[in-house]
Amino acid sequence: MKLTILGCYSATPKVDTNPTSQVLEIGGSMFLVDCGEGTQVELRRNKVKFSSIKHIFISHLHGDHVFGLPGLISTFRLMGRETDLHIYAPKGLKEIITMQMKLADSWTNYKLVFHELTSKISELVYENDKVEVHTIPLDHRVYTNGFLFKEKPGERLLDMQLVQKADIDVAYFKKLKQGFDVMNNNGATIENKTVTKPPKPTISYAFCSDTAYSEKIIPLLQDVDVLYHESTFLDKHIDLAVKTRHATATQAAMIAKQANVKTLVLGHFSTRYDNLLDFKLEAEAVFSPVELAADGKIFHFVK
Amino acid sequence: MKLTILGCYSATPKVDTNPTSQVLEIGGSMFLVDCGEGTQVELRRNKVKFSSIKHIFISHLHGDHVFGLPGLISTFRLMGRETDLHIYAPKGLKEIITMQMKLADSWTNYKLVFHELTSKISELVYENDKVEVHTIPLDHRVYTNGFLFKEKPGERLLDMQLVQKADIDVAYFKKLKQGFDVMNNNGATIENKTVTKPPKPTISYAFCSDTAYSEKIIPLLQDVDVLYHESTFLDKHIDLAVKTRHATATQAAMIAKQANVKTLVLGHFSTRYDNLLDFKLEAEAVFSPVELAADGKIFHFVK
Repeated sequence: MKLTILGCYSATPKVDTNPTSQVLEIGGSMFLVDCGEGTQVELRRNKVKFSSIKHIFISHLHGDHVFGLPGLISTFRLMGRETDLHIYAPKGLKEIITMQMKLADSWTNYKLVFHELTSKISELVYENDKVEVHTIPLDHRVYTNGFLFKEKPGERLLDMQLVQKADIDVAYFKKLKQGFDVMNNNGATIENKTVTKPPKPTISYAFCSDTAYSEKIIPLLQDVDVLYHESTFLDKHIDLAVKTRHATATQAAMIAKQANVKTLVLGHFSTRYDNLLDFKLEAEAVFSPVELAADGKIFHFVK
Repeated sequence: MKLTILGCYSATPKVDTNPTSQVLEIGGSMFLVDCGEGTQVELRRNKVKFSSIKHIFISHLHGDHVFGLPGLISTFRLMGRETDLHIYAPKGLKEIITMQMKLADSWTNYKLVFHELTSKISELVYENDKVEVHTIPLDHRVYTNGFLFKEKPGERLLDMQLVQKADIDVAYFKKLKQGFDVMNNNGATIENKTVTKPPKPTISYAFCSDTAYSEKIIPLLQDVDVLYHESTFLDKHIDLAVKTRHATATQAAMIAKQANVKTLVLGHFSTRYDNLLDFKLEAEAVFSPVELAADGKIFHFVK
């Protein structure tokens, strides 16, 4: 699983800080998550192939998470895109994008499919044969969802030596991979686990930005491999965090700990802080390991 | 007169090329003209004080001229702006911006005043005591205006030696500056031009992007000091220029020549070209002097 941080700062883009956007590659698929202003340039800077992006997930309609989307949609059109583009976003975005295209008289040549999110409970919003994506309802000033990306369990792996030794016909391999016991060429029942190994372990990623500290999301995050949780503020600004429905690094770590995640990645930093290491230090007092997001940083996670 | 080019490329922003936006300082006022994606970052990079921007002129609603505006409006809010912001733009933009603010539940604390443009003939859209701004109706795929910024003529300048020699009372100085003949202390009529000098010469700037070659605009551009005219294409792509309602460098120069402007600045380059000097060469075959816009370039023009 590969995570490319295009931007990990809150509020307004500056010369050296980009608003939220990231690319997740999991189970052979690529997903763009959030799309702050400048995302298309950061995609180019990080050499992400535009044509690989078929699904975009938008957490909420604050500008620092979505103002780059109209430009990206327009650029796809100018590049001659023909592939469908699916956008999973709060209700309302479709109306804005449609109005912008109408006023610019610039309709896409490709099919733009909006999946409007309105549910306040977690729902499965996308799946293919290898991955599923669920919403994580968050607690922010406007309707906001995080997203949980998880690989589906694969098939059981055949131990070919044992399979051959057990004299099982090739016609039963599919059943074996699916976990069934089968009959061998002599009519004897072969117990599945005597000739197969468990499927490859699956990996999962949860994106939670923007949100106040909310224990409600913990069941959804249980045991995920990587949790990206916003930490707009340090503890000394807890009052601002509460007021603006954001979280501190400590709070992000508290969620990580209670959900028993493997790794916590912090992001959505306020640009008021000079030293981001303070975020890591505060979080590590509660949970470890903690990673800091950084614009242009690429994380590789293995299971 | 100072012109800061924030972006001068067409279509999509790339790592080293920004879409259209520029800052014009004329007659003591500062105007932002167009606002492609990333404009707020370019304003920071070029150290333009955000608080100096009180009037924004938008030529048309194609993304490369306006997708940076929602973010800039939002950033002004986050910075605690209180001053009114005036936006001169085609009808429709107000609706988009309002919808975005509504969905983000993020209304500005300052007053946002939209001046919706719909006229197909030139009109005066802004003036203060020193400057006036007129629209220049352009010929593009959607409703588009260029903008003509011109200093108002100042008052006539008193030649104090001659004024005193003519024995004119100070009470008449205002009349003299306004060009009237006055009576001196002996009751004699003093002809204005015998004691005054002409006002300081005024300077003017015309922004024409995006547009097909259109001779209709020539009367509006007559004798302007600086004409910024789009030249998306070189001559070899004249077919594309015609098709997309854009202009070539040669066509921009033909307009400059016919309007008898002093200086032509070329911009809105397609990113397909490696060597922008070709634009200058093609234009100079028709008109000179020709300047090439460049992101981050600052022009100082004097009269």
